Amino acid sequence: MRDNSMSNTHDSPPKSLDIIQPIKQHFDEPLTLACGEVLTEFDLVYETYGTLNADRSNGILICHALSGNHHAAGYHIDDNRPGWWDTYIGPGKVIDTNHFFIVCANNIGGCSGSTGPANINPETGQYWGSHFPSLRVRDWVSAQKRLMEFLHIEQWAAVIGGSLGGMQAMRWALQYPDALRHAIVIASAMRLSAQNLAFNMIARHAITTDPHFYQGHYLQHNQFPRHGLSIARMLGHLTYLSDDLMGDKFGRELRTGSFALGIKKAVEFQVESYLKHQAAAFSSHFDANTYLLMMQALDYFDFSRDFNNDAIAAFAHTRAEFFVVSFTSDWRFAPERSQEMVTALINAQRPVSYINIHARQGHDTFLLPIPDFMQVFSAYMLRVTDECR
Amino acid sequence: MRDNSMSNTHDSPPKSLDIIQPIKQHFDEPLTLACGEVLTEFDLVYETYGTLNADRSNGILICHALSGNHHAAGYHIDDNRPGWWDTYIGPGKVIDTNHFFIVCANNIGGCSGSTGPANINPETGQYWGSHFPSLRVRDWVSAQKRLMEFLHIEQWAAVIGGSLGGMQAMRWALQYPDALRHAIVIASAMRLSAQNLAFNMIARHAITTDPHFYQGHYLQHNQFPRHGLSIARMLGHLTYLSDDLMGDKFGRELRTGSFALGIKKAVEFQVESYLKHQAAAFSSHFDANTYLLMMQALDYFDFSRDFNNDAIAAFAHTRAEFFVVSFTSDWRFAPERSQEMVTALINAQRPVSYINIHARQGHDTFLLPIPDFMQVFSAYMLRVTDECR
Repeated sequence: MRDNSMSNTHDSPPKSLDIIQPIKQHFDEPLTLACGEVLTEFDLVYETYGTLNADRSNGILICHALSGNHHAAGYHIDDNRPGWWDTYIGPGKVIDTNHFFIVCANNIGGCSGSTGPANINPETGQYWGSHFPSLRVRDWVSAQKRLMEFLHIEQWAAVIGGSLGGMQAMRWALQYPDALRHAIVIASAMRLSAQNLAFNMIARHAITTDPHFYQGHYLQHNQFPRHGLSIARMLGHLTYLSDDLMGDKFGRELRTGSFALGIKKAVEFQVESYLKHQAAAFSSHFDANTYLLMMQALDYFDFSRDFNNDAIAAFAHTRAEFFVVSFTSDWRFAPERSQEMVTALINAQRPVSYINIHARQGHDTFLLPIPDFMQVFSAYMLRVTDECR
Repeated sequence: MRDNSMSNTHDSPPKSLDIIQPIKQHFDEPLTLACGEVLTEFDLVYETYGTLNADRSNGILICHALSGNHHAAGYHIDDNRPGWWDTYIGPGKVIDTNHFFIVCANNIGGCSGSTGPANINPETGQYWGSHFPSLRVRDWVSAQKRLMEFLHIEQWAAVIGGSLGGMQAMRWALQYPDALRHAIVIASAMRLSAQNLAFNMIARHAITTDPHFYQGHYLQHNQFPRHGLSIARMLGHLTYLSDDLMGDKFGRELRTGSFALGIKKAVEFQVESYLKHQAAAFSSHFDANTYLLMMQALDYFDFSRDFNNDAIAAFAHTRAEFFVVSFTSDWRFAPERSQEMVTALINAQRPVSYINIHARQGHDTFLLPIPDFMQVFSAYMLRVTDECR
């Protein structure tokens, strides 16, 4: 197994998927949301990689995180970069398209094609904007379940997600216990800490106090809260990286090289121009209301709320086998958060494999080609594969 | 010694200083700044506590941090709260006004009475605004030296500071080696990390992109970048607290108690209303340009820059004895930063006492009445006292 998994990273370059076509699916049965409001109809944009086998047992659902979307792997015809988890998904890769039929959908409330606040509300003929209903992780899971039914899949081989995606995997295990065999929860938590909440709150504050926000109806005014969204994104991005990684990558280097004290205008540190560039790119294509909705779902997620905050009782309702992964340098969702989850699973007498991967790259480690992570993740996926045969 | 120091916190309430009157001193000899510009004249506002002894050997300089000022202890006539370090400064307290003559000045560039960007530039008759010269830690030390000369003090018994104040204490030891006997550096660092720089950069970005910033000339427009400064402050404040402390203090409690999912409008978590309240209070009295200047001095401080980044060579030029303190939960200036300093001091064959205080309160621990910290700090100060007799 080890040789198989490691060959992807060392011996030969991994093969790529063919050109990927996203699919838009309309759902016209109303979806009642956790907040009590109803989406009378909605679209989900999704992609699939690999082939569904004859007994439809090899389906894998990938759940995206805060700023992700349905384009997890391969290339669109005009892409110069592949999907966000292409490192892990493809022929011969960790989540092997030769074995699995992989599904990834843009969540409702998103801005990549699924119904969201930047769309027209069919009932009013206006942009949804901040009138889009408040969302919870369970709503995304409910919408993904509709897609599952549409695809005639009765049980996922695994539901997999990192960060906010991991919360969706957890929620799947709770909400539809028999609809998945494995829940793979990476760099996630059963709920945000007060510090996490505070970071999100500052990001939210930056967006909503931007004078171009217009209480969320900026599209109607042909405006966009670009500055606020940039600040929110810089802040988010900063918390995804470790101090060590930032030190390795940028140190205290100045963008313009020299440190002439006579220069009045502040020269920029490398880390500044990097974060500004990232934020500018992000705020040119991502919808601010979507960002707010995703952060709110993240803030309010609390795995055991319906069980009087008893995580053991909550996990006792699950049937999936869990694989939990944390990263030593992740200070946004610290290893302690994963360990709380694992402790509750064990106390609930549920099967769980847990590994705390030593990595310097912070929260974003799960997106990067980290050999130690790829190896154990591959090994675990080979077990999942065996069950599909 | 222990009994003496602990009596302050346990046996009897500490006595207070009498009502404090700040003093404004004008300096009309030009001050050439590190950036090459010259302040032709400047004011320093300062306070003193205790009495200068006959041989003028018991002077202590307190250096304030990012958002601090000269009002370190006691009460002004209209205060309902004492100065920012009143917990530590007063009769019978850790920095004992019965033994020391304590001086604390608002730094130039400040907004509490010393010459700063919210003042009128006498050469133009306009607000300085963003035309105020760029400042470095060494400029503050140079200005504090002028005050020292004015007070006819030849050597401080100690220069003491936390955070950015600690950088000033370090810089004193380097710039005027014979002008202090002890440098007390608390929760500080020889330079910011890339992550620290990134936090400051986001704060700066929030201020300067506020449409009421007017490129720093908001006062001329009778405006104020309140939103931007609030975001900057919330972010700063968040990094001064530990995740544990925030968890203890706020958890995931909601301000309005109930968690009715039917409510469309987001209810606030406790941590949100706390940070918003703090930021609103701060941005109603603190000047945004001052905040930018202080952050820039913090960003550019690099203790050993003039020594080819050889900290050992830099510390070899100092003559003061060092007392270095860090706090286990401080992730803004982590204990590792203090330990780098201590390692360089030892390698430079300089005397240093170092303690890493176990505390859950994060960076701001140095402002709080932490018994373990008060005890060792008191003991160290008794040594400093003995030398003044």
